Amino acid sequence: MPAFSPIPRELMAVEPRLLANAIRALAMDAVQAANSGHPGMPMGMADVATILFTEYLKYDPADPAWPDRDRFVLSAGHGSMLIYALLHLTGYARPTMDDIRGFRQLGSSCAGHPENFLLPGVEATTGPLGQGFGMAVGMAVAERHLNAVFGDDLVDHRTWVIAGDGDLMEGINHEAAGLAGHLGLGRLITFWDDNHITIDGSTDLSRSEDVLGRYRAMGWHTISCDGHDFADIRRAIDAALADERPSLIDCRTIIGWGAPNKQGTAATHGAALGAEEVAAARKQLVWESAPFEIPEPIMTAWRQAGRRGAAPHEEWRARLAAHPEHGEFVRRMEGRLPEALAKSGYLDQLIANPQKVATRKASEMALEAINALLPETIGGSADLTGSNNTKTKAQKPLTKEDYSGRYIYYGIREFEMACAMNGMALHGGVIPYGGTFLVFSDYCRPAIRLAALQQIRVVFVMTHDSIGLGEDGPTHQPVEHLTSLRLIPDLDVYRPADAVETAECWALSLQRRDGPSLLALTRQNLPQLRLQRSEENLCGRGAYRLRPAKAARRVVLIGTGSEVEVALAVADALEGQEIGADVISMPCWSLFDGQDAAYRADLLAADALKVSIEAGTTLGWERYVGPDGLSIGLDRFGASAPAENLFKRFGFTAEAIVPQVIAALQSRGE
Amino acid sequence: MPAFSPIPRELMAVEPRLLANAIRALAMDAVQAANSGHPGMPMGMADVATILFTEYLKYDPADPAWPDRDRFVLSAGHGSMLIYALLHLTGYARPTMDDIRGFRQLGSSCAGHPENFLLPGVEATTGPLGQGFGMAVGMAVAERHLNAVFGDDLVDHRTWVIAGDGDLMEGINHEAAGLAGHLGLGRLITFWDDNHITIDGSTDLSRSEDVLGRYRAMGWHTISCDGHDFADIRRAIDAALADERPSLIDCRTIIGWGAPNKQGTAATHGAALGAEEVAAARKQLVWESAPFEIPEPIMTAWRQAGRRGAAPHEEWRARLAAHPEHGEFVRRMEGRLPEALAKSGYLDQLIANPQKVATRKASEMALEAINALLPETIGGSADLTGSNNTKTKAQKPLTKEDYSGRYIYYGIREFEMACAMNGMALHGGVIPYGGTFLVFSDYCRPAIRLAALQQIRVVFVMTHDSIGLGEDGPTHQPVEHLTSLRLIPDLDVYRPADAVETAECWALSLQRRDGPSLLALTRQNLPQLRLQRSEENLCGRGAYRLRPAKAARRVVLIGTGSEVEVALAVADALEGQEIGADVISMPCWSLFDGQDAAYRADLLAADALKVSIEAGTTLGWERYVGPDGLSIGLDRFGASAPAENLFKRFGFTAEAIVPQVIAALQSRGE
Repeated sequence: MPAFSPIPRELMAVEPRLLANAIRALAMDAVQAANSGHPGMPMGMADVATILFTEYLKYDPADPAWPDRDRFVLSAGHGSMLIYALLHLTGYARPTMDDIRGFRQLGSSCAGHPENFLLPGVEATTGPLGQGFGMAVGMAVAERHLNAVFGDDLVDHRTWVIAGDGDLMEGINHEAAGLAGHLGLGRLITFWDDNHITIDGSTDLSRSEDVLGRYRAMGWHTISCDGHDFADIRRAIDAALADERPSLIDCRTIIGWGAPNKQGTAATHGAALGAEEVAAARKQLVWESAPFEIPEPIMTAWRQAGRRGAAPHEEWRARLAAHPEHGEFVRRMEGRLPEALAKSGYLDQLIANPQKVATRKASEMALEAINALLPETIGGSADLTGSNNTKTKAQKPLTKEDYSGRYIYYGIREFEMACAMNGMALHGGVIPYGGTFLVFSDYCRPAIRLAALQQIRVVFVMTHDSIGLGEDGPTHQPVEHLTSLRLIPDLDVYRPADAVETAECWALSLQRRDGPSLLALTRQNLPQLRLQRSEENLCGRGAYRLRPAKAARRVVLIGTGSEVEVALAVADALEGQEIGADVISMPCWSLFDGQDAAYRADLLAADALKVSIEAGTTLGWERYVGPDGLSIGLDRFGASAPAENLFKRFGFTAEAIVPQVIAALQSRGE
Repeated sequence: MPAFSPIPRELMAVEPRLLANAIRALAMDAVQAANSGHPGMPMGMADVATILFTEYLKYDPADPAWPDRDRFVLSAGHGSMLIYALLHLTGYARPTMDDIRGFRQLGSSCAGHPENFLLPGVEATTGPLGQGFGMAVGMAVAERHLNAVFGDDLVDHRTWVIAGDGDLMEGINHEAAGLAGHLGLGRLITFWDDNHITIDGSTDLSRSEDVLGRYRAMGWHTISCDGHDFADIRRAIDAALADERPSLIDCRTIIGWGAPNKQGTAATHGAALGAEEVAAARKQLVWESAPFEIPEPIMTAWRQAGRRGAAPHEEWRARLAAHPEHGEFVRRMEGRLPEALAKSGYLDQLIANPQKVATRKASEMALEAINALLPETIGGSADLTGSNNTKTKAQKPLTKEDYSGRYIYYGIREFEMACAMNGMALHGGVIPYGGTFLVFSDYCRPAIRLAALQQIRVVFVMTHDSIGLGEDGPTHQPVEHLTSLRLIPDLDVYRPADAVETAECWALSLQRRDGPSLLALTRQNLPQLRLQRSEENLCGRGAYRLRPAKAARRVVLIGTGSEVEVALAVADALEGQEIGADVISMPCWSLFDGQDAAYRADLLAADALKVSIEAGTTLGWERYVGPDGLSIGLDRFGASAPAENLFKRFGFTAEAIVPQVIAALQSRGE
C-alpha cells in the first residue's frame, strides 16, 4: 500500500529545515510568552513532524472532520506547541496566531495540553502519558473495521503517533502494543521521540531496556533513524509503510534542538528557555523574524503542503456520493442512531414475560436487541466475556484475519480496553462498549476520566458490582467504586435494578452523544420490579418513585441496583406496621441532579425520613437523605463468602434495616 | 550465590508427584465443597510449587515472621488453594484443615483470594492481576537495601513469584519488569504458569507475543521448563539461581493437570470441577483417601520438608544476637519509629521563622528532618522528583551498583511505584514514600486500594493537588480525586494548609503502622497560618478551629489545603460586616469522623451556616455542611491558565464567596 502521494520533494521551494524551524520558533516563543510549557519536545521532533505533515500525512485543513483523513495523535501531549504550530502552519482555521499568542491562557484554544474539544484537528486529548498511544490503537482498529465494512473507496487511512519515553514506560504501552501486535494493525505507525531525557534527567536513571527488542517481541516492525536527518526520516517511514506489521520508528533526537546551551538536557523539557537562550537559539537557527511571525516564503511553503489533501479529498467525496452505502456511512460517521432502534419490541417482551435475571444477563438480553439493530456497536471484554455477558450470539470476533467482526477479545488489559474504546469513539463510525468487573474500573479509571473529558460516547459495562459477587472477597468487591465514579464530571453512572431498568439505561447510554456512560451490573439474579409498560424512560430522570406509600408516608426509601429489592422488602415490613414508605429507585445520580427542583422535592419529600440503601460506601448519600436521614451502606472492605451470607452479615436485609428505620423515626420524635 | 540448602533429594521418602497430588486433592476438594473457586491453577502448578517448597524455598513454618525468610508471592491469587495447601502441608499453624474446609466461607482464613491480614505466610494480598508481581519487585528491593545496610549475616534471602498469563498481560507487568531489570534484582525469580489458557479460552484469542523475548529485552534471564517434569523444573531453577539477572521461568503446564476430561481447558479455571470429574481425577491421580484427608506418609514427608528451615533459622538467630546492629535491626523490622523523632526541633523552627512555601516544599522541608532521623525511609518519585519535592539533600539514589541508597528514580511508572512501595512495606524494615501528581493517583489507584486493604504503612506524596497547578490544564488538574480517595476504606487522606500542618500530617503518616496515608500538596505557595506552637498535633483531630469568630458567630467556614487561606479572607470580609465566622481547617476527613460527637458538634456548630471551600467536587461535603449549608467547589473539569486566573474564574476568592454566604444567611431568614 503506497503512502499518500506527497508533493514531489523537488517542487518544495523551501528546505525542510526552514519549515521545521518555524515550529521551533513558535514553540519557543509561545512557551516564553506564557512562561510555562514544554519547548524541548516540539523543538526535538520538529524535523520528523515536518516530514510527516508535508510529505506523508493525509489531511485537509479545510475539513478537519474528513472521515478518511489520517489520524495523528500527539501522545506526548505536553509537547502541545508542536501540534498547535502544525495546525496553524498547514492552514487550519484554528489556531490563529492570536490563539497561539494566548498559549496556556484562559480562553485560548491552545491549552497546556491538546484538547480535542477545543481544536478540530486535535484528534485526542493527550497528556496523561501512554493514553494517546493507547487510543491510537483503537483508532486503527476502527479504521480496519470500517474498511472491512465499507471498503477501500471510503475508508483507507493510517494512524500516526508521536510518543515519548514516558509513553513507552507507562504500563499502558505494553497493553496497547500487545493488542496492536495481536490484531496486526499495520497501518499504525508510531514515532518514538528517543531523546534520552525525562524530567528527572537521563533515561539511564530509570530505564535499562531494549525498547525495540521489546516491540519486536510483540509483533511489531521496528526501525531507527536520525530524527534530524530528513533523508533518514523518509527512509524509516518508507520502511514502516512497506511492512505489514505495526511500526515503531525510533527517532534519535536531541531534545530542544536548536537551543545552543540547553539542548540535550532536561532543562528544555518543561520550562521556558528564558529570553537569553531564546535569543541564542534564534541566532543558532538563523531565525530573524520577530516572535510569532513566520517569514512569508516559509508560510507559503507550509500552506502549499497543507493543500496537498484538497484534491484527494475531492476525489473521495465523489466516491462517497456514488457509493451505494452513502447514507449509512454518513449516518454512522455522524454518530446518529438508526431510527429502527426506537421500534424494538424488547421492552414489551419484558413486560409480557418478566425475567428474574442478573442485570449483567439483562444487559446481554438488551444487547441482543441493540446489536441486531445497530451495526455500529463493537463489544468486548477484558477476558471476562462469560462473566460480563458482553458478547451476543451473532457477534463474530474482530481478528487480524477478519476485521469485520464486532467483538474484541481484549485480553487481560482493562486499561487498554478503555483506551481503545476511547480511540474508536474518537475515530467515529462505531460505538464501542466493553466489560470488566466494577472493582477493576480502578485499572482503567484514567481512561474513563479521559472519555468524560473528551465528551465521547463510550459505554463501560462493569459487572459484579458489589459484595453480591460473593466468594471472591474484598479484592474483587467494589465498595467505594460507585461513588468514586459518580464523582467524575460528565460521566453518567447507572446502576439499574432489574431487566427493564437495564434496558432503559442502555438506551440512555446509546442516545447520549456527548459523553460516556458506565453501567454497574449485578452478578446475582434480581426479580423484575417494573411490570408495567412506561412510555417514558423512567431512568432518564435519574430517580423515580417505583412504589408509593400505602399508609401515610413517613419514610422514603431510596435504593439502587440490587438494593431496590431490599428497599421494597423494608417498605413491606414498615407498611405492615402502618408506616407508609415510598420506594425510590435511583439508577443515576447525575441525571437526577439535573431534574428541576419540583421533581426532586417531590421525590425526596421534606417531611419524611429518607433512607438510602446501597451496598457501598455511604459518603455522598447525605446529599439525598439529609442530616437526619439514614444511610445503609458498607464503609469498610467486604469479605469472602457466599453473597447471601454477606448481605446478612453486613445488614442488607429487611430484618436488619427496619429496626434502624423505626429508631430513626423515634429519634425524630415521631 | 547457592540456593538455600535443600534436603538431599535421595532422602525424600515420597515421590514429588505424590506430594504435589496432595495439593491437587486439597484444591479440588475445597473448591468442590465451596462450589466456588479456581482449581485449575493449583493443579497445574502443583509440581513446580512442590519442588520450590520442598527443595529451594527458605522458610520456617514455626515463625512466619522470620525476617530473613524467602518471600513467596502468589501473584495469580485466584489460585489461592495452592498457597493454603502449601502452608497447611508444610506445617504452618494456620490454615488448619478446618480452615481449608471453610474455603471461601465467612470467617475462614482461607478466603477466595489470599489475604495477608488473615494468614501469616501469605506475604501479600493478591488477586488484582499483576500487582503481586509488582509488589514482589518491591520486596526484592527492600531485601537488597537491607542487605546493603545490615550485611549478609542478617539479610540474605530471595523473592519468588508465581505469575499467570493475566499477570503478564496487565500493563503493570511491564513497569515492574522494567524496574526490576533496571535495578538488577537477581534474587527475584518468577515462575510463569504458561498454560495457554485464560478465562475467555486460549491465550491465542488475545495474545501473540514472545513473552520471554520481551523479558530478555528488559534485562531478564529467561528459561523454559516442562512444569510437570521435576528434573526439568530443578534444572530451570538452578539456572535462574546461577544467573545474576532477575529470572523468568517459563513453566509449560497443563491447567487442571490430573482432571482427565477438563484439564487443559478454561473449564478448570474458575469453577468447581463437579463431583464426577473430581472422582475421575482421584482415579487418574490414584488418590484414594477421602476429601480433606492426606495419607500419613505424604503428610510426614511434607512436614519434614517444612522443617528444613528450622536449623538455618536457629543459626540466623544466633547471628542476630551477636550482631552489633541487633537492636536497630529488630526495631526496623518491627516497624517502631526511633525515639529521636519526637525530639526534632523542626516545628519550633517553623514557629520561629514562618515559611511562605508550597506545601510540596513544606513536605520536602519536613522530610529533611524526617530522613535525618529515620534511616528506614526510602523515597522516590515517578519521574517528578523536582516537582514532588520528594528527594532530600543527603539521599543517594538506590541503584544496581549501590543498594544502600535511599531514593528511587521509579521512572514514568506510577503504578509500579505504588506496588513496589507496597512490597517494601510488606517486606518490612523500611518505610517507603513516593510521589507523583495527584491527578495521576488514578494511575496507581489499584495499588493505593491494596495498601489500605493490606493495612500497611506507605505514604503517597501527591502534589499539584488542584487547579492551583495552573497551565497544564484539565488533564493534569485533579478535581474529583480528593474525595474519590477519601472513599477508599482505611486510607487517610491529608490536605494540609501550610508548613506546620504539612509537618503534622507527615508525623501522623509515619506514626500510623496499620495503614497507608496520602498527602495532597500544593504546587503554589501558601502563607504559614499556624504561628503558635501547639503541644497537640492538631491535624490528628482531622479538623480543628484555626480561628474563632470575633463578632457573634453566624458562619462556620471549613477549608482544606490551599483554600484555608481563602476561608480566612472570607472570614475577614464577613467580620468586617459584623458577621462572625469561625474558620475550620479540615486536613483529614477520616480522622475527624473518628472524633467524639461532642468535638464534632462543637466545630460544626448547629446554629451556624456551614460553608465548605475546596477546589474540587462538592459531593460529600453535605456530610459537614448539612442540607442548608453551602459548598464552594468545582463540579466540572478545570482549564488551562495561570493559577490565580483559575481561582478567579472558578470563584475561589473572597469577592466571589462572600455574597453567596450572605445570600445563604438571608435565605435562612437571618
